[in-house]
Amino acid sequence: MTGEPPARQRDWSALRGGRTRIGLGCDYNPEQWPRELWPQDVDLMRQAGLTFVTLGVFSWSLLEPEPGRFDLDWLGEVMDLLHAGGIAVDLATGTASPPPWLSHRHPETLPVDRDGRRAWPGGRQAWCLSSPVFRDRAVALAEAMATRFGDHPALALWHVGNEYGCHNAACYCDTCAESFRHWLAGAYPDLEALNAAWGTAFWSQRYGDLAQVLPPRRALTPSNPSQVLDYARFCSDALLGQFLAERDVLRRVCPDVPVTTNFMTLNHFRDLDYHRWASEQDVVSTDHYLVATQVDAEAELAFSGDLTRGLARGEPWVLMEHSTSAVNWQPVNPAKQPGQMLRNAVSHLAHGADALGFFQWRASQAGTEKYHSALLPHAGTDTRIWRDVMRLGSLVERLDGLAGTRVSAEVAILWDYAAGWALNQPSQPSELVRYGDEAQALHAALLRHGIAADVVHPHQDLTGYRLVIAATLYACDDRAVRGISDAVRAGSDLLVTYYSGIVDEHDRVRLGGYPGALRDLLGIRVEEFWPLLPGERVLLDDGATGGIWSEDLRLEQAAAVARYAHGPLAGVPATTRRDADGATRWYLATSLRGEDLDRFVSMVIAQAGVEAPVDAAHGVERVVRTGESGSYLFLINHTDRPVQVAAHGVELVSAHRVDGTLTLAGGGCAVVRQSSNESS
Amino acid sequence: MTGEPPARQRDWSALRGGRTRIGLGCDYNPEQWPRELWPQDVDLMRQAGLTFVTLGVFSWSLLEPEPGRFDLDWLGEVMDLLHAGGIAVDLATGTASPPPWLSHRHPETLPVDRDGRRAWPGGRQAWCLSSPVFRDRAVALAEAMATRFGDHPALALWHVGNEYGCHNAACYCDTCAESFRHWLAGAYPDLEALNAAWGTAFWSQRYGDLAQVLPPRRALTPSNPSQVLDYARFCSDALLGQFLAERDVLRRVCPDVPVTTNFMTLNHFRDLDYHRWASEQDVVSTDHYLVATQVDAEAELAFSGDLTRGLARGEPWVLMEHSTSAVNWQPVNPAKQPGQMLRNAVSHLAHGADALGFFQWRASQAGTEKYHSALLPHAGTDTRIWRDVMRLGSLVERLDGLAGTRVSAEVAILWDYAAGWALNQPSQPSELVRYGDEAQALHAALLRHGIAADVVHPHQDLTGYRLVIAATLYACDDRAVRGISDAVRAGSDLLVTYYSGIVDEHDRVRLGGYPGALRDLLGIRVEEFWPLLPGERVLLDDGATGGIWSEDLRLEQAAAVARYAHGPLAGVPATTRRDADGATRWYLATSLRGEDLDRFVSMVIAQAGVEAPVDAAHGVERVVRTGESGSYLFLINHTDRPVQVAAHGVELVSAHRVDGTLTLAGGGCAVVRQSSNESS
Amino acid sequence: MTGEPPARQRDWSALRGGRTRIGLGCDYNPEQWPRELWPQDVDLMRQAGLTFVTLGVFSWSLLEPEPGRFDLDWLGEVMDLLHAGGIAVDLATGTASPPPWLSHRHPETLPVDRDGRRAWPGGRQAWCLSSPVFRDRAVALAEAMATRFGDHPALALWHVGNEYGCHNAACYCDTCAESFRHWLAGAYPDLEALNAAWGTAFWSQRYGDLAQVLPPRRALTPSNPSQVLDYARFCSDALLGQFLAERDVLRRVCPDVPVTTNFMTLNHFRDLDYHRWASEQDVVSTDHYLVATQVDAEAELAFSGDLTRGLARGEPWVLMEHSTSAVNWQPVNPAKQPGQMLRNAVSHLAHGADALGFFQWRASQAGTEKYHSALLPHAGTDTRIWRDVMRLGSLVERLDGLAGTRVSAEVAILWDYAAGWALNQPSQPSELVRYGDEAQALHAALLRHGIAADVVHPHQDLTGYRLVIAATLYACDDRAVRGISDAVRAGSDLLVTYYSGIVDEHDRVRLGGYPGALRDLLGIRVEEFWPLLPGERVLLDDGATGGIWSEDLRLEQAAAVARYAHGPLAGVPATTRRDADGATRWYLATSLRGEDLDRFVSMVIAQAGVEAPVDAAHGVERVVRTGESGSYLFLINHTDRPVQVAAHGVELVSAHRVDGTLTLAGGGCAVVRQSSNESS
Repeated sequence: MTGEPPARQRDWSALRGGRTRIGLGCDYNPEQWPRELWPQDVDLMRQAGLTFVTLGVFSWSLLEPEPGRFDLDWLGEVMDLLHAGGIAVDLATGTASPPPWLSHRHPETLPVDRDGRRAWPGGRQAWCLSSPVFRDRAVALAEAMATRFGDHPALALWHVGNEYGCHNAACYCDTCAESFRHWLAGAYPDLEALNAAWGTAFWSQRYGDLAQVLPPRRALTPSNPSQVLDYARFCSDALLGQFLAERDVLRRVCPDVPVTTNFMTLNHFRDLDYHRWASEQDVVSTDHYLVATQVDAEAELAFSGDLTRGLARGEPWVLMEHSTSAVNWQPVNPAKQPGQMLRNAVSHLAHGADALGFFQWRASQAGTEKYHSALLPHAGTDTRIWRDVMRLGSLVERLDGLAGTRVSAEVAILWDYAAGWALNQPSQPSELVRYGDEAQALHAALLRHGIAADVVHPHQDLTGYRLVIAATLYACDDRAVRGISDAVRAGSDLLVTYYSGIVDEHDRVRLGGYPGALRDLLGIRVEEFWPLLPGERVLLDDGATGGIWSEDLRLEQAAAVARYAHGPLAGVPATTRRDADGATRWYLATSLRGEDLDRFVSMVIAQAGVEAPVDAAHGVERVVRTGESGSYLFLINHTDRPVQVAAHGVELVSAHRVDGTLTLAGGGCAVVRQSSNESS
Repeated sequence: MTGEPPARQRDWSALRGGRTRIGLGCDYNPEQWPRELWPQDVDLMRQAGLTFVTLGVFSWSLLEPEPGRFDLDWLGEVMDLLHAGGIAVDLATGTASPPPWLSHRHPETLPVDRDGRRAWPGGRQAWCLSSPVFRDRAVALAEAMATRFGDHPALALWHVGNEYGCHNAACYCDTCAESFRHWLAGAYPDLEALNAAWGTAFWSQRYGDLAQVLPPRRALTPSNPSQVLDYARFCSDALLGQFLAERDVLRRVCPDVPVTTNFMTLNHFRDLDYHRWASEQDVVSTDHYLVATQVDAEAELAFSGDLTRGLARGEPWVLMEHSTSAVNWQPVNPAKQPGQMLRNAVSHLAHGADALGFFQWRASQAGTEKYHSALLPHAGTDTRIWRDVMRLGSLVERLDGLAGTRVSAEVAILWDYAAGWALNQPSQPSELVRYGDEAQALHAALLRHGIAADVVHPHQDLTGYRLVIAATLYACDDRAVRGISDAVRAGSDLLVTYYSGIVDEHDRVRLGGYPGALRDLLGIRVEEFWPLLPGERVLLDDGATGGIWSEDLRLEQAAAVARYAHGPLAGVPATTRRDADGATRWYLATSLRGEDLDRFVSMVIAQAGVEAPVDAAHGVERVVRTGESGSYLFLINHTDRPVQVAAHGVELVSAHRVDGTLTLAGGGCAVVRQSSNESS
Repeated sequence: MTGEPPARQRDWSALRGGRTRIGLGCDYNPEQWPRELWPQDVDLMRQAGLTFVTLGVFSWSLLEPEPGRFDLDWLGEVMDLLHAGGIAVDLATGTASPPPWLSHRHPETLPVDRDGRRAWPGGRQAWCLSSPVFRDRAVALAEAMATRFGDHPALALWHVGNEYGCHNAACYCDTCAESFRHWLAGAYPDLEALNAAWGTAFWSQRYGDLAQVLPPRRALTPSNPSQVLDYARFCSDALLGQFLAERDVLRRVCPDVPVTTNFMTLNHFRDLDYHRWASEQDVVSTDHYLVATQVDAEAELAFSGDLTRGLARGEPWVLMEHSTSAVNWQPVNPAKQPGQMLRNAVSHLAHGADALGFFQWRASQAGTEKYHSALLPHAGTDTRIWRDVMRLGSLVERLDGLAGTRVSAEVAILWDYAAGWALNQPSQPSELVRYGDEAQALHAALLRHGIAADVVHPHQDLTGYRLVIAATLYACDDRAVRGISDAVRAGSDLLVTYYSGIVDEHDRVRLGGYPGALRDLLGIRVEEFWPLLPGERVLLDDGATGGIWSEDLRLEQAAAVARYAHGPLAGVPATTRRDADGATRWYLATSLRGEDLDRFVSMVIAQAGVEAPVDAAHGVERVVRTGESGSYLFLINHTDRPVQVAAHGVELVSAHRVDGTLTLAGGGCAVVRQSSNESS
């Protein structure tokens, strides 16, 4: 279901100010401010060490104030000023949010939700993902932008749209219904295949004509889950189509400039199948924001970084947006703690970013995002934030040479957006099982052990990893099953957590005992699921405590590692292993957390022979980036106590040489350009 | 408001495989599986001891793949196979869920909610309860089915629609508005009567023309409560009309086959006035599912069984659906505990079922219900569930003779769906007061004492019961008041809990002091309600603790049993009794639970002279079914400790003779065919 | 933004039965009851000491049973009866709720919510605030009423509509969209001014034509906050326009009768800018209901009273509605505690009411409000409630002379409804910050200290107050800033709490450091907000504990009073003071409650020289009303312990002379007509 591996990414070093440099930049919205401020802005950008800004993301209503009349001069003026100041431009096509005149003339371009409610203007991104009217208008603006600015010397990268699917990831209007039917006609050989895939023999849902098929609009009950799953695929593809329409006009008009659109690889956005999108990018870029109430939010950041690197197939990527401090869209929006902005930025680099962008240059004076932090707060330059920005700028300068180096990992965690779309529906055994929770918990446990992991699609070649993890990978198509089997046969250990491999790509159960797709590989057979109620816990005979899930499991070729110690499943295996063909296949039938999970992971990685690059206390993240320019050891202390780590080289955050032992304060971070005899 | 007592039910023993046998069956959806599996299915059904299956419930889109073209041959093939295997058929008319072509051609058949949102296809049962188009199409299918299969030798029972009102119990479309006005024209002599009944003099709601009346669609405030109440009545009647239209065509085409539709007598479905429906059934059938998070869920099962028996006027009934293990529609769906499936099945028999049906034969591979348990799980026959099914099949065989015996009870608990529709609205003194909570709590307390109860409509003849319970029976029409009074005058004790008899059948307050309808009978007068806030408790001077409710009560002819011990109502009576005309009338002005309620109930039943059929520990349910074939003592141990009970006869669960003392494990159950000298 | 100071209120003493008397009355809905009861009603009213009733509020469908046909005779009959009984009439125009025929003929008069859902009839007040059809019909009815009853001798006051904006405070239909554009055309010089004020340069929201502007209907994201703010202003003004249309016809037809409409000055209604409405009233009237679950509900009552007095510019006002006991619209509706009805009534008088009205005379028998308490409960006159009503009637008689006296206060708390509309939107730093919470907490702390406060609009002249409080006054226009500065320069102390003066009247941030509007006055500069998560607390070095909010604050000309004792802001000032120009300016950067707030307030009032009129225990409310007729000391014991207070005069609640020490029971209240040598 994923696209082919991308051609190697196109050179985008202009954005970074040079091949070996790390990029530093931000969204810049000069149209919100008086012209008189613009030169001062460029001066301050230079002082802060910025290499690029992103222009024009939300400027359509100014760039095309009325249909067909383009007013691009003010933007040209800004680009000239930036070029004069040595700042490169990531130029948006400006199509993220249509202007009021579009929906005024064409209300049918406004998206409609499952309930049939139209979304009105007043916010942003109010456009239907199938709308041909929107597409034509967006392509026309992209073409005007390309024609005018395609050879501007400041132009380093095209930025198509913005955060596709943020807010408008789905639409259920009649235009979408028609497009969906068209998509289905391409996805299935005939209507009988669709009826079979969706299981329409039940609930009297059999379609006699494709014209009868609709989006999964609000029904009296949960909608057919296979229909819902296909609709999620369709929406992702329809938005991808909108992206490609703009990208193609840019490639035609100015073929030498690389093109990207900024993804949102973060925990609360899973609506697009980025594996299908990534191969269409000249460089993968993404946005990341922390959620204040999320437990272990910085582990989520690390996971998202590894996922982004996976999308980029290991190549460097652009962090297009993150925040200097608070955001504005949570119920309560705390400021970042002292040192946190730097730590977050370093963490993104550790996971493969070669450029760090922020939203935005100046905090807005009005509108919905005015309380989103920026590089320049409302209070101006005499502020902690601005001083931290300057500090980051100087660190980025010292990191010259890091660009282009790579992270290498011995562990692969499988990730498939569509498996999540299948799982996170109603009518499942337990709504407490959410896609990604186990993957992230295992990733976080590895991080605490100092182990780097790749987060990759199951269709990717997995052979060569010491350990492959399928964490509650509910849906597996045959290709994924083959890929996992191939890796195991080639010597990879395998760790599978509960409720993996249950269904195929149409959400059809693989019969004969769970987990149908992986049953033989693991040597077990599960008769029945025993999900636990909220708050319910089950004790294992190795002292661990499971939550969320248990199941009535029978050993076939596997051995029990731990068993339930009480309750109706007492004596039934909760964790199993099967050693065969030189590889160990672990199965975890319940949900462990904290020390229980850490102990389990210790056992698994020890067996797989996976080790951290350097010794350190539990909770210290350790990542190495290596390349022609050398080897960089990233250390991030996620504990609140000082820790000591052996290191040799130049520590670039403090700009001090280290020879022997490095002390990291609680919450501190370090980047050691390792002396050559120490590079891994 | 209820229908007349039904003619005695028609013979439906073919479904059970014989007059004296208990039926065992399930929904069977062969269209979900390859033809090759069908013969194997019938073999396994025989092995399990099934006597019937229900066919075709959700098959409309296959039975009539396009308008007017019927494809019934595959179903005939299945019926032939079943007949050859000795399995009887409960044949659905197939009209539960219309096919996609119906709403594609006639979107006006889709239901509309209070907010004006249309429900789209993709789920099930998406049809407007007033739709003449739906009715015509459903009747046409029913006629085609009757014509084709009316004399098929496997046919034992007609199953019209399915779970009427599940999901589509109300619709607010313009067609319904018109039907509602028609219904009102029949329900009220003239518009002034309607205006008076609804109290339209307030809030400027007086109707000058019936054409102005609408369903209680979403308003800015709660809608007129009398209008809401009448709309609930109208919806129940409109659905009943749909049932009757199909039933009548079946009776016309094949007059010898009994007809039913499966009710849903369970706690979370109260949308139809089944007392009006029951008299139209040839045999009452129902579905029952446990709710995992419900406190004392098996007491709810027992209550629902007694309610179903009440609907059947004491005659045996069919449990059409329950589950072998988990369902799929709760947030978390736990498996049934070991032994629970058997205990639940026995409990349904204890409350009067003569047939036990399950949903469904094979667990589906796809669709919304694929994680609903079945007789044949995804994992196949080598499973706990299948072994338990076989065990149940052999028990059912041993129960030959039980069919046709009756439960007799000395306690009547009053139940009126419409009283619940009146109560469970906004703008009441307390939303913590929910219809049925006190009735079920009292029923559960009786069960713990081993006392059987009938759950009956207040219009039923109540004379002869030793105890009549009106539990928070908010609304009472004059006929109900007369019925209760008649019973008391004839010697029945009476127990009334708070907030009973407050309004008439139009939700108009009975003036002069609460509880207006029962004030004189009870000898009290309540000045004012003092509902308690969530979590608030009030201590009584007998040591009990009340919740939810209290009130400022004055004694007239009654005596205080207990009084509030503190707070603003200190000294005011909380429980009262009035002894007069040889009967005791109890009043409970607050909500008791647990041991407090048990103590109160002990006092009431001792006074009424009601006793359990055998002595046993508190918490052991004891029910006797008797008839020409003898007497059966059902024992269900709802505690988790072993208990001993005196018994003489053959214990059929274990198939052992018992003579003296029977030991029931915690959670265990027994059915003793009593030796003749022991039958009660 | 507020209207001009009103002309002095018109004489409304007829409602009170005389110039010096306090009014006592209730809503009277005789149309709900048989004609035979009416004379008995008037007799009972006289017995209870009522001086007025409000008639006809919800009677439109009876007064005009079909379009253009008026049926006013029954109402005339009631008025005659009342007049004969000496009861004055507050006559409603009857336009609060339109009759069914209006929406039947004109569905476009039904309001539409943000989601586009029309509100249907069945409740009350279902009319669109911009509807010209509704307006014409309402004016016609008002004119008919005025023509018929304008010179009726019972008529004492006109009561236009009812609780404007209750339920229909906003509508988003196309008619409203058109009216909104018209309103904007009057509010802004041109479209560029609107674009600038709303910050439409962001998110591509720039309007090229006024015709593109819409109400802030449901969007995919929060709508533009300045648009939302202006829409709230527009809605308030549109409803005011509806009021004025009726008022003007009344003034034209019967110019001698004063006119009012009843406001809702209570915590959960903030949808109208009553400061703009108040100046259009001949006498300010309001409704007040307690909320059972509100912490410190009676402090909220006191605050609302002071706010109402502020709206009346210090003149006496009418409490049009409150309740004798329970209301019906909460989830649980407890009865009033013994003594509470009297205490609440006295409290309203203490805050400036000269008339006390209740909803309603008889508890309704049917409809949504049937469980709302009344003067005459369902149980009749032999009830606690009726006896309490009689007791209140006799107290009111003894209060002859109180009418026309005034409360005077040395503290002003600023209140601006529009500041709340700006603050209580999404995309703020913290949704825990709600407009009014700090103002009410400070008001309650003053009350516990026995200090009276005025609650006034910031545009009012503030000079002369000893202390001015701007409590989380998020938005301040320039005029407000000038007003505050003028008062401080004239010697008033100033207390500002966090998140005040952040934006201007368009919700545009005042740049350069927070709080932009008051930064210089306070001598501080806030760099960044540090809102606290739910439940998070921060310790101050004076032992207090802050919640909800903290911030990174720098002292400029101010001194720290207390600092954060731990955490990332350790050492940063949490409370500051600046003494300059003979006045002290306090700043409180976090949220204090309970004893911490009391201690802080003690310090502030001591510094300002503000003192209670008499010494008493903490928690005893003390208010003095004075006038030509003498001085009245109101004492309300909000604690549950008896307290002693020095007093000289006649205590009117008990009708006893007091000379020396008065003892107030817990929850007790007193009104002392002070001997002349003791009056303050």
